[in-house]
Amino acid sequence: MKVAVKVRLKKSILDPQGKAVNQALHQLGFDQISGVRVGKLIELEVADGQSKEDIQKIVEDASRKLLANTVIEDFEIEYPEAAK
Amino acid sequence: MKVAVKVRLKKSILDPQGKAVNQALHQLGFDQISGVRVGKLIELEVADGQSKEDIQKIVEDASRKLLANTVIEDFEIEYPEAAK
Repeated sequence: MKVAVKVRLKKSILDPQGKAVNQALHQLGFDQISGVRVGKLIELEVADGQSKEDIQKIVEDASRKLLANTVIEDFEIEYPEAAK
Repeated sequence: MKVAVKVRLKKSILDPQGKAVNQALHQLGFDQISGVRVGKLIELEVADGQSKEDIQKIVEDASRKLLANTVIEDFEIEYPEAAK
């Protein structure tokens, strides 16, 4: 099953990369755009033949242990439509 | 309006970061996970008071010119549910 993990900096954490992108966009004339935040989109494949609950447990565990730094980042897991 | 741009390496492009994450996950015992790809999740705010079409044009233009390197990356734009 294909699963996506969205990793975002917490709202209270400054995002210098997002700020740089925001400034670059303004220099290119995109004045309508603001508040740019840059996060990670991690897509992975979990072996089939396990219950939905097991897969959710595995991906949440992996996110907490490795994919996201939960001190400064939040993560959100997206399962394919059919698996919800 | 809040818009999200998902930027992914094209399928044909090697993803060393994804490979490193994949290996690290296996070392932690997550053997059920494979095919990790790491992309970017860019979230931004577009000023209201414009038509949906204008907003779509702005974000697509910004993605093509700055957010994604279209030689090696694909991008996908996600609008909030209500705006579709």
